[in-house]
Amino acid sequence: MKKIINAPENYTDDMLRGIYAAHPEVKYVNNDLRCYCTAKKVPGKVAIVTGGGTGHLPLFLGYVGEGLLDGCGVGSVFQSPSPEQVYEISKEVDAGAGVLYLYGNYTGDIMTFDMAAEMCEMDDIKTQSIVGADDVNSGAPEIRRGVAGIFFMYKAAGAKAAQMGDLDAVHAAAQKAKEATRTVGFALTPCVIPEVGKANFSLGENEMAMGMGIHGEPGIWNGPIKTSKEIAEESLKTLLDDMPVAAGEEVAVLINGLGATSIEELYILSNDVSSILKEKGISIYRTYVGEYATSMEMAGASISLCKVDSELKDWIDYPVNTPFYCQR
Amino acid sequence: MKKIINAPENYTDDMLRGIYAAHPEVKYVNNDLRCYCTAKKVPGKVAIVTGGGTGHLPLFLGYVGEGLLDGCGVGSVFQSPSPEQVYEISKEVDAGAGVLYLYGNYTGDIMTFDMAAEMCEMDDIKTQSIVGADDVNSGAPEIRRGVAGIFFMYKAAGAKAAQMGDLDAVHAAAQKAKEATRTVGFALTPCVIPEVGKANFSLGENEMAMGMGIHGEPGIWNGPIKTSKEIAEESLKTLLDDMPVAAGEEVAVLINGLGATSIEELYILSNDVSSILKEKGISIYRTYVGEYATSMEMAGASISLCKVDSELKDWIDYPVNTPFYCQR
Repeated sequence: MKKIINAPENYTDDMLRGIYAAHPEVKYVNNDLRCYCTAKKVPGKVAIVTGGGTGHLPLFLGYVGEGLLDGCGVGSVFQSPSPEQVYEISKEVDAGAGVLYLYGNYTGDIMTFDMAAEMCEMDDIKTQSIVGADDVNSGAPEIRRGVAGIFFMYKAAGAKAAQMGDLDAVHAAAQKAKEATRTVGFALTPCVIPEVGKANFSLGENEMAMGMGIHGEPGIWNGPIKTSKEIAEESLKTLLDDMPVAAGEEVAVLINGLGATSIEELYILSNDVSSILKEKGISIYRTYVGEYATSMEMAGASISLCKVDSELKDWIDYPVNTPFYCQR
Repeated sequence: MKKIINAPENYTDDMLRGIYAAHPEVKYVNNDLRCYCTAKKVPGKVAIVTGGGTGHLPLFLGYVGEGLLDGCGVGSVFQSPSPEQVYEISKEVDAGAGVLYLYGNYTGDIMTFDMAAEMCEMDDIKTQSIVGADDVNSGAPEIRRGVAGIFFMYKAAGAKAAQMGDLDAVHAAAQKAKEATRTVGFALTPCVIPEVGKANFSLGENEMAMGMGIHGEPGIWNGPIKTSKEIAEESLKTLLDDMPVAAGEEVAVLINGLGATSIEELYILSNDVSSILKEKGISIYRTYVGEYATSMEMAGASISLCKVDSELKDWIDYPVNTPFYCQR
């Protein structure tokens, strides 16, 4: 295991200490490093709380900040936070307008947020929940995992909340982005969970895994690495078969790196994606390229499409500023 | 070689096509993809031009944008751009106030920019040059390589130019940041040059290279991986022996990932760096953590310190916005 760490069992907390030391805009509550909150509470604004396991930065906590989210429950590597942690965060960030729980579709996280919602109810804190489930190759819509496409849900809900929409309106914005977003991902190498110390799966030299999840969940095929153009073609076919986009319609594109893949490669892939969309007469409203949802040092990438109308465009363009992500 | 690419010989140009397709804020001139310029020219502003080999994103071209640089000569992977390219870029971005050449201290780049300066002189375009040379372990100050610390030179010169300082003043701002900045880097794995197809050096399983350059230039020692705390201690000793910082003085810290290293690990390292500085009574004005100067999929990181006064703080805090980097 080649990592810059101290004791593997302290991986998550050492990381959090580094984040709090570097960024005064965020803080933790209840004397628990895992209860991550913005330091800037906006009276009357709907609060948005996310959460999930460590190992996906900037997902999840990196999106806590101006124009996006208000709090994040931080679990250990690839583990869910606890209901108590999400409850404590909710109490801290609720500004009187209720709390939207917006997180990825994983069993442990669903249990955590559902229990936290019950605890909030006893305190008369209104909550609503919605899960990201954009990973097309992970199964039927209702069981799909949430991956990088949750970024568009964060943008939509975050903008609507910043515009002082009520809890129903913020939930509706997230729902609209969810329905408009699909993702396909693929891995070239595994990653190593620090406390395990070895790769969570293996891929042959020159082998890739199409559809693999960000925790190493099996994909739909393993085989020789395809070219960027071939990967873009297969991925876009999968995406557009699941969510048709007609010529003349517009999409926002997110080319996300899983961690070890160079930014150079992401732009090579982005170039092939934009060429294919252009051939189909689909216009690209905005392209995001970079690391938005990673799996530590896993090599690979994902392609997300968000089919946009004027409302989604406004939410996507809404300025945001967090310690991990800034958009003017 | 596990990369998301098409033909290896098209690596740089495919990447550039992706960047231009994604970001309308930038363009190329002279019908040459490698002549990278901002699309927004500010009349009367000193232009700043950088350049260098591909494989270090967001270095170099990623810093072209509002509040930073105006143009970038793009070479092939780890190769210098040509004098003609830098000359064509200079003609495009010169807004009547002259051009500052600000790049890393590498022989090929020095030849390129010196020849470009001569070509500009014949066109009565004023130029001045300054090289980044912050890598302490690469030798005596005059022969030091430029690495991630050039970020602080970009910030200082970019802010001074945006504030409409003249060419001498912009050069002086870069010089001031240069004198205040030192970097120590280390690698955990090599990277693969696409057209070569194999690693440019080898490191044993569980071995790291202290002081290795961003092209794989040999460092000062190879040995078993140390803990984050041990690496931070050795690096800070090297940095502070070379540039003393007294208790009570302030620094800006840049924790830079070389490519494959996870953001989580960078924050673990950042935590150890800030703890050690705190023990020494050195205050941290601002901490940057992320990928600022990479070596494709090389694993490793670098630590830069910039000793700041009120002027440097203002330049560091000056808002910037490029397709690769935003600071509000």
